[in-house]
Amino acid sequence: MLTRGELHERISKLQTVIIANHCDAVLIIQNVDLYYYSGTMQNAQLSIPATGEPVLFCRKSSERAKQECPWPVIALPNYKLIPEKLLAAGLKLPKRLGLELDVIPTAAYFVCLKIFSNADIVDASNWIRNQRSIKSPYEIEFLRQGGEKMARVFSQVPQILRPGISELECAAEVERLARQLGHQGCIRIRGYNQELFFGHLLAGENGAIASFNDGATGGKGLGPFFPQGPSEKKIAVNEPIALDYVGVFDGYMVDQTRLFVIGSLPAKLCDAFQTALEIQEEIIALVKPGIMADELYNIALKRVENAGLSENFMGYGPGRAKFVGHGIGLEMDELPVLARGFHVPLEEGMVIALEPKFVFPGLGVVGIENTWLVTKTGKEKITDFPDDLVVIK
Amino acid sequence: MLTRGELHERISKLQTVIIANHCDAVLIIQNVDLYYYSGTMQNAQLSIPATGEPVLFCRKSSERAKQECPWPVIALPNYKLIPEKLLAAGLKLPKRLGLELDVIPTAAYFVCLKIFSNADIVDASNWIRNQRSIKSPYEIEFLRQGGEKMARVFSQVPQILRPGISELECAAEVERLARQLGHQGCIRIRGYNQELFFGHLLAGENGAIASFNDGATGGKGLGPFFPQGPSEKKIAVNEPIALDYVGVFDGYMVDQTRLFVIGSLPAKLCDAFQTALEIQEEIIALVKPGIMADELYNIALKRVENAGLSENFMGYGPGRAKFVGHGIGLEMDELPVLARGFHVPLEEGMVIALEPKFVFPGLGVVGIENTWLVTKTGKEKITDFPDDLVVIK
Repeated sequence: MLTRGELHERISKLQTVIIANHCDAVLIIQNVDLYYYSGTMQNAQLSIPATGEPVLFCRKSSERAKQECPWPVIALPNYKLIPEKLLAAGLKLPKRLGLELDVIPTAAYFVCLKIFSNADIVDASNWIRNQRSIKSPYEIEFLRQGGEKMARVFSQVPQILRPGISELECAAEVERLARQLGHQGCIRIRGYNQELFFGHLLAGENGAIASFNDGATGGKGLGPFFPQGPSEKKIAVNEPIALDYVGVFDGYMVDQTRLFVIGSLPAKLCDAFQTALEIQEEIIALVKPGIMADELYNIALKRVENAGLSENFMGYGPGRAKFVGHGIGLEMDELPVLARGFHVPLEEGMVIALEPKFVFPGLGVVGIENTWLVTKTGKEKITDFPDDLVVIK
Repeated sequence: MLTRGELHERISKLQTVIIANHCDAVLIIQNVDLYYYSGTMQNAQLSIPATGEPVLFCRKSSERAKQECPWPVIALPNYKLIPEKLLAAGLKLPKRLGLELDVIPTAAYFVCLKIFSNADIVDASNWIRNQRSIKSPYEIEFLRQGGEKMARVFSQVPQILRPGISELECAAEVERLARQLGHQGCIRIRGYNQELFFGHLLAGENGAIASFNDGATGGKGLGPFFPQGPSEKKIAVNEPIALDYVGVFDGYMVDQTRLFVIGSLPAKLCDAFQTALEIQEEIIALVKPGIMADELYNIALKRVENAGLSENFMGYGPGRAKFVGHGIGLEMDELPVLARGFHVPLEEGMVIALEPKFVFPGLGVVGIENTWLVTKTGKEKITDFPDDLVVIK
């Protein structure tokens, strides 16, 4: 359980930003941010003033919120009553209030406009996202454990894969293994309309089917109603089988892609896989505090161009994703993004999933993905399962 | 795949409502609504004018959108360009535009305010939710198939349950069975901050632990970061084991709860379970077009009171949920809700999960849940697995 000390540190850091932005308070509504700042994920909202202690307003379950959250918990049936409760507690109403405008529904924004009718409302999304991009030792320990658990899951994949098993059947077995180790199942993504079920297990040509998914791969999925991830396709010999799975343990995510083949991989795909490993190696050698996120992306692009694989990098043709890595933690799409325009330095405590991949229409996807911690002097590999192509005879 | 005829009917019905509300168009942004009106769930927005054909604007993957959607598909890199593309196609910009304000993030609303700067923006959420509450024969067929698949899953539960297995281990097996039959995994919920992984498998006292979840049960879950559903708790003899699972096949959900016990159930819980079955029977006997949703809830409350179980109905104490059933379809929380204040008549084609449940602190939860179709003259049971307590010797 989150300690008061850990939570106090998080609140203090946000308060510095609240003050720097001339705000009086932030009202946290989204469940993940709520957990991050309060230690509980009940149906609640957290009022964080510029100075002083936060207050949690909870509709359900107050009992559990009180067990988990060190801040004062006020039970209330409807969050429209928050201003009246703040006043009753002798607190002032904010004149300038920060909200998570990137994620809260418009209807919730309208309610806030009404109940804080004298307040200017500003967007606090990036204050929160920037803060959450730097993980504390407490968080890093969960990430390490998650990496270790996903290594155990992946070590069992060769026993599951066989010619004729469908992507879906294979995924069902992998998911069961992860679940038995405590995988929470739900993968939390901040980006609107994005969703993912465990990850993408894609064989052969399915690895090259694009979808709405923001990543390099989509997959056929189960149909137009769920157009990504594993499908009914039977896995065959001599085709790339990419397992891109998100492990979520203790709330924290690690992202890992490994390549498997039953038999042997066509030479063209072997070469591209080798290039992906080299890109990973080149980028990771540079990872340390101070290096710019976009610089790492540009380095990847340069090497891709030299290899003559620009059209195949992170997708194919117009569907190519325009990044090579992303922050990860309580959500899958955290900061920073290793992409053009992200001219921000890496910092100690950032956690990044780096995923150079190549997509070949009709053939599939090859590549590598690991989750890395930026340390004081370099990096630490969180997903410590061997990177090599796993050949099943 | 959705036919042009089915989609045309859906668009026509919405257009009637658009016109009745003096609107010029609705712009669909949310992925589920997008699938409902376009047949595709790519990264896209659908402009539905008051009259004439819709247009789909697609960022990724246009290729797949074109295969699945019968409306014109215009590829564009950013939805900020929609107004300019509408004008280029010789169409007028809306002066009054409907948006899904219940679900779209505030940031997306701001973008729409900017790009449709001359338009009044109104909330189209309930137009869509009301329309989607009535299922077509095409949709009903998927629901029937989903009910049949979940019956197959539940029929295998007695082979999984044994004293000493944890809720989580058991859930992992049940989930695998569902997944192998094509369960899509992700459960789509419209309500903000709500999430669910397959459902709640809760044994003994865990069935009585409340959470943020809007339903009757919560469960301990895996920790404060995922505070609902199965936990590490070992299942014991003579305690209620409730499996409340959502099946999602072909995009459509069915909701089903059954009660299991290894050994025998305490008399108090047997009695309460019997009362739940009687409430189901009494309500279902009245279900047909014309009966009011709140009337069904009131009938349940009356019988609960007569049984002296008011404090235990749909939760315990202040955490009780204030409904006895909910619409279900592409999302888990559809209209109508069988609750106070929902003074709306049932209509042919509505699909309702009816779930009378009783929660006893320290003992657990007992109850029943089935998904029902409202037919022209009555009802049809979609989740056709026997309702009885399943006793494992």
